[in-house]
Amino acid sequence: MPFCDVSRDPTEIPLFQHRQTSAPLPSFARDPAKDLEPPADWIDPSACVAAELALVEQTLVRSIRSVEPALTEIASHLICGGGKRVRPMVTLLAYKAFGGAKTQDIVDIATAIELIHTATLLHDDIIDGAETRRGKESAYKKFGLKNTLVAGDFLFIKAFEFAGKFDDTIVQWTADACTQLTEGEVLQGSFNRNAAVTVADYIEIVRRKTASLFETGAKIGAYLAGGSSALVETARDYGLNLGIAFQIVDDILDVVGHKELLGKPTGIDLRDGNPSLPIILALKGREKAVAEAFQSGHPTDEKIREALEAMGRGAAIQQAKKLSRTYAEQTLAAAVQLPPSVYSNGLRSLIELIIDRDF
Amino acid sequence: MPFCDVSRDPTEIPLFQHRQTSAPLPSFARDPAKDLEPPADWIDPSACVAAELALVEQTLVRSIRSVEPALTEIASHLICGGGKRVRPMVTLLAYKAFGGAKTQDIVDIATAIELIHTATLLHDDIIDGAETRRGKESAYKKFGLKNTLVAGDFLFIKAFEFAGKFDDTIVQWTADACTQLTEGEVLQGSFNRNAAVTVADYIEIVRRKTASLFETGAKIGAYLAGGSSALVETARDYGLNLGIAFQIVDDILDVVGHKELLGKPTGIDLRDGNPSLPIILALKGREKAVAEAFQSGHPTDEKIREALEAMGRGAAIQQAKKLSRTYAEQTLAAAVQLPPSVYSNGLRSLIELIIDRDF
Repeated sequence: MPFCDVSRDPTEIPLFQHRQTSAPLPSFARDPAKDLEPPADWIDPSACVAAELALVEQTLVRSIRSVEPALTEIASHLICGGGKRVRPMVTLLAYKAFGGAKTQDIVDIATAIELIHTATLLHDDIIDGAETRRGKESAYKKFGLKNTLVAGDFLFIKAFEFAGKFDDTIVQWTADACTQLTEGEVLQGSFNRNAAVTVADYIEIVRRKTASLFETGAKIGAYLAGGSSALVETARDYGLNLGIAFQIVDDILDVVGHKELLGKPTGIDLRDGNPSLPIILALKGREKAVAEAFQSGHPTDEKIREALEAMGRGAAIQQAKKLSRTYAEQTLAAAVQLPPSVYSNGLRSLIELIIDRDF
Repeated sequence: MPFCDVSRDPTEIPLFQHRQTSAPLPSFARDPAKDLEPPADWIDPSACVAAELALVEQTLVRSIRSVEPALTEIASHLICGGGKRVRPMVTLLAYKAFGGAKTQDIVDIATAIELIHTATLLHDDIIDGAETRRGKESAYKKFGLKNTLVAGDFLFIKAFEFAGKFDDTIVQWTADACTQLTEGEVLQGSFNRNAAVTVADYIEIVRRKTASLFETGAKIGAYLAGGSSALVETARDYGLNLGIAFQIVDDILDVVGHKELLGKPTGIDLRDGNPSLPIILALKGREKAVAEAFQSGHPTDEKIREALEAMGRGAAIQQAKKLSRTYAEQTLAAAVQLPPSVYSNGLRSLIELIIDRDF
């Protein structure tokens, strides 16, 4: 469990593929649909906040200790199982970009945000009956419904133990983000296997279900560091747009990604009937195989394979990539308004990693 | 849904059976095992804090509004479905007993505690596959696993939105209570259908799973009202012992109660394999029918009926009643140390209602 080894330098952790910081990147440069240039001064974002990320790891491990070993075991199974830590990274970078210097404060908030994210993963896996997560058996599969459900509650509580010690604004923003997560889950559920779903519905689901924690991490970072109201809003825009781009890429990888890199099979959205962006675009493009697999209660593996191939061949993936880049551009437009520093540079560089990732 | 009518006077709500405040109460007086006298100046506890309880009802209803109607509907189904509000009552009475005068503050905390309790009920019903709750279909049965699970998360979040606005001590105590709830659930699960469970195990489960919210409500009430450390501890002792007595009575009612009054069938603990006190005492007394029903994966209705009858006939119920009175005495011993007032009188009077209830 490499992520649990808190003595390890987080820059060694394969958060994303580390790259050379000089030239434009091959796969990015080769992509004909690209319309976003990596910054010339590209920097590894995780390296910018390596010390703080190491503290987040330590705080995560410490926070999940319980008198009931089962709770610690289930929480560790996921927390120590290879998360990208992208939400803490955004939070830490935003704080440092605004000159924040109280490391423990922002580490506590970044930890809270990762704990909330992990709690929702545990509960999502119950809801979706997921078999695998981060390359291994899901907690739900391994530990059963009962203890996994309770472990999710436990992580929510631990998150609020951190967030609750800050001022009312931070408590409210954190609670609002969590409320949005639940509201996003319900909205997504209402479009399960429902071909009437639109791209606008999708963006609303993603805004709530994924982007809310990115947005909240970024704005709390800026706020805690003493950023002006206008710049806190800019940080918020950064997080919001990055979160949407992140989810779109996740959805694309569920179609064209590699099982080994993803740590889970592809085609999960089709199997579960979740309205991902490629599925919605394929439905719009009248891809029959996709419509059949998406709307079927229990699509066969063969039907899913056919639908994935149809999406890969058709325009859906290219259109989804284009939309992810639109959100990436909006993220960049926010990032360039931040005070220049290695950290705001890290925030700009992070956009490219989010867009151009394989897992 | 009478509990949702926030214009209604909460003293009309059948929190418990309202009684005459003068003479000792018939059923209490008639019980040969009684060793706890009702206070001569008995008073209806809910009437002491009627205005504050009405505000808790309003705040509960307001707090569960969501842009997703499904979340409000599921939360309302349970919150507006006839809870006793005994945890808010303890919290409000403890605050007033120490002279607290900031009504909105204690209403927010009392609301948070009821929201947490309700969140755990939603999740418990999923865990137990419960069909009924408070006299009607359980939320899990009516709305399904997915949205019920998410609605439980939603209520936890709303609770923390309230609690998180208080000082670090209150945040920590609230989080500790919630952590204990999850740890109690896991500990209880580890003794599911396990005849090795002891009375000491039971008390530890109940301390965490039920008494923690009573304890926390009482001590936050005393603390927020400015009670000395020693008296905050006394309030804590009151809540802790009352909570244990409350759960023992719940367990007894699951054996000898009436379905119509309880709003759910009896024998649930046997059916689910939960180690209730009467079951543990019957196992200790080598009641064969109880051992068979408790340890069986799917006991038949006939087996459950036989086991319930065996418990009713044998010593288990009398022994359990005796233990509930021991905890009630300890609760009373704490209550008499509180400054004399109508509210501390209400806290003393509440003990009797908890012990001598039919639902």
